[in-house]
Amino acid sequence: MNMTGMWETASYSIERLDGGETEQRREDVLAVEAPLEIRFAGRPAAVLMRTPGHDEELVRGYLFTEGIIGRADEILEMTRPDDLAPGLVGNVIDVRLASMRKAARLDRSNVSSASCGVCGKRSIASIEIAAERIDAPTEVAREVLSTLPGKLKPAQPTFRLTGGVHASGLFTPEGELVAVREDVGRHNALDKLIGWALAADLIPLDRRVLLLSGRVSHELIQKAVAASIPIVAAVGAPSSLAVDLADRFGITLVGFLRPDGMNAYANSSRIR
Amino acid sequence: MNMTGMWETASYSIERLDGGETEQRREDVLAVEAPLEIRFAGRPAAVLMRTPGHDEELVRGYLFTEGIIGRADEILEMTRPDDLAPGLVGNVIDVRLASMRKAARLDRSNVSSASCGVCGKRSIASIEIAAERIDAPTEVAREVLSTLPGKLKPAQPTFRLTGGVHASGLFTPEGELVAVREDVGRHNALDKLIGWALAADLIPLDRRVLLLSGRVSHELIQKAVAASIPIVAAVGAPSSLAVDLADRFGITLVGFLRPDGMNAYANSSRIR
Repeated sequence: MNMTGMWETASYSIERLDGGETEQRREDVLAVEAPLEIRFAGRPAAVLMRTPGHDEELVRGYLFTEGIIGRADEILEMTRPDDLAPGLVGNVIDVRLASMRKAARLDRSNVSSASCGVCGKRSIASIEIAAERIDAPTEVAREVLSTLPGKLKPAQPTFRLTGGVHASGLFTPEGELVAVREDVGRHNALDKLIGWALAADLIPLDRRVLLLSGRVSHELIQKAVAASIPIVAAVGAPSSLAVDLADRFGITLVGFLRPDGMNAYANSSRIR
Repeated sequence: MNMTGMWETASYSIERLDGGETEQRREDVLAVEAPLEIRFAGRPAAVLMRTPGHDEELVRGYLFTEGIIGRADEILEMTRPDDLAPGLVGNVIDVRLASMRKAARLDRSNVSSASCGVCGKRSIASIEIAAERIDAPTEVAREVLSTLPGKLKPAQPTFRLTGGVHASGLFTPEGELVAVREDVGRHNALDKLIGWALAADLIPLDRRVLLLSGRVSHELIQKAVAASIPIVAAVGAPSSLAVDLADRFGITLVGFLRPDGMNAYANSSRIR
């Protein structure tokens, strides 16, 4: 396993087979997928499979959406250990928390890695969400929503190179792009975005619209709930549980977003 | 959270917004996403977020690709507890293993839920794969590969209804569809397929071609390695780590598979 995780993309020599007689050897750019090990005060605690880049944001967002921290300043320090084996270089972040009792909570709840939002959890009872319903009065025009995918696309450099990553984009209700993050894991892209917002003291994001490049599974809604994002729109389909959670936590959920139409799955009253 | 997990799809009342003046309320069919709790002799051990259906295959495949069991008969019994709270009905499987020592291994390695193949793992060292290189001489014609996506599509009833699930399809080298499984999680679709093959005593699958409906991340290659599948083709892009693993374990990996061409990323000598 090649664990060189310093870059977002990597060049591979491939064969292009296109029906012609000859195979063409060429260079192809792939999205890098590499493990990021999170340590608490030196002790390995979790591994996230992610695309390198914005790692600190990812760690911050992950710890926030998992409920380990509630504010950015609960992380006292994030460092990159310098005594690593070659395969680990670039792929380890050591976190010093204000309260190590909270780190223990990650251990106890067994959320030792939540690449997919549930992973590491041992029982169905442990995946229940404790959060308040989002009642932000933010509204967005249908015509604005329609334009968002077209605005996200030029801001996805890694997708353009590789075709292999998801994106999460944050917009104003007027349709202005605020920030975008990409990753091979859709949950990571959103955690990076939320980690960025947390560090910039922008949470709650109750005046923002989240655009997801793909499908919507429950953990993306769970993360939106954590960041108090009232409107979530996606290019792909939602799962049943994503709709159930959006309905219950007051999130406006739009799917199959296209220039000429969309489906509103929950709390559509925010769409003008 | 609605945990009714008995069905593969569920009908929701949605609003269709398509640029016209009036919103149309209509029924939309969504892919169900619901948690499946795996218990070992009554004790909760792992949760997988899955689309209900083929649950026993999923559990069998998951325990096999995670290295907890090596043969189907190491599972003595799978039962559905009948004393469950309403929200859990249909979503719990209790497993009796021939060796409970192996169940303890799942606990110790902390792979308590691997919806995404790594989750639950605490350190990068623990995600290393111990397996033999696949040296099966199986070959497939480029022309056959090109036809596979078109053969998979009619065998994806849940995708046709919802647009929201992935599929894993198993083919002969001559291009005949052997089996297909769908799920909101691509790793689950593959675990269901492998669990089916394990129960039918078809593993190693060293004379088969695996077709994936989406992108290829490393855990899908890891599962293919566990089932000894020599040829993996995907409609989407592979990640860097997927290619690295395929290269190392002798798997032929094809991506961006289209009727008029494809990319060969590793071990292309099996493609005629």
